[in-house]
Amino acid sequence: VLPLTITPIGHVVGSPENELGTPQPQVIEVRAGHEEALLGIERCEELLVLFWMHRLQAQDRACKRVHPRADRSNPLTGVFATRSQMRPNPIGVTRVRLVERDGLRLTVEGLDAFDGSPVIDIKSG
Amino acid sequence: VLPLTITPIGHVVGSPENELGTPQPQVIEVRAGHEEALLGIERCEELLVLFWMHRLQAQDRACKRVHPRADRSNPLTGVFATRSQMRPNPIGVTRVRLVERDGLRLTVEGLDAFDGSPVIDIKSG
Repeated sequence: VLPLTITPIGHVVGSPENELGTPQPQVIEVRAGHEEALLGIERCEELLVLFWMHRLQAQDRACKRVHPRADRSNPLTGVFATRSQMRPNPIGVTRVRLVERDGLRLTVEGLDAFDGSPVIDIKSG
Repeated sequence: VLPLTITPIGHVVGSPENELGTPQPQVIEVRAGHEEALLGIERCEELLVLFWMHRLQAQDRACKRVHPRADRSNPLTGVFATRSQMRPNPIGVTRVRLVERDGLRLTVEGLDAFDGSPVIDIKSG
């Protein structure tokens, strides 16, 4: 099977939590050249965001089983039966609320991605 | 920005519709080597499936705006504000019902992917 290649369409700016550990909005900075692909997006209240969990290492991608929610009292479960970040292709899928659009910058709530994560796709939620 | 690479974890077998155009279950054939990653998946009623829309051509990936639902009376809208298949990284995200598991074969309802589509990820739904 050939590998498939993805070119990021943007990246995440900002931390998912402030210094107190409280969730805070994050910005998706869409790459120049995709202006037209955002036409009318401000009318979407919710978006589905696909992003690359870029901090995962090779051994995380090789992990097959986890204790769900990192609780060892949960029985070992295959990663495909969980929402664990450990998975062969580290793509996160999150439904977010669109708070504001300013040109190529989308401010969203609920993304929970690390600062700098490549964004792969945005769909209406 | 470097391209990111994905290795499919399986592929879709069967057509989304029968000869009468009625939706029918499809099979996800998971690749050998991922047995452990399926541990306990039969307990999931719903799964989120990420697949590669392999029939899209380069010009489909370059498309920035569409008439939603292919209805020309809908105003042109950026692809990131739609669920159109036209998008730079042609990844479909669909919630399916798991009907049966037989080893590496998962029979699912509601996938609506072309026969042969590479499957990228499976998550609990």
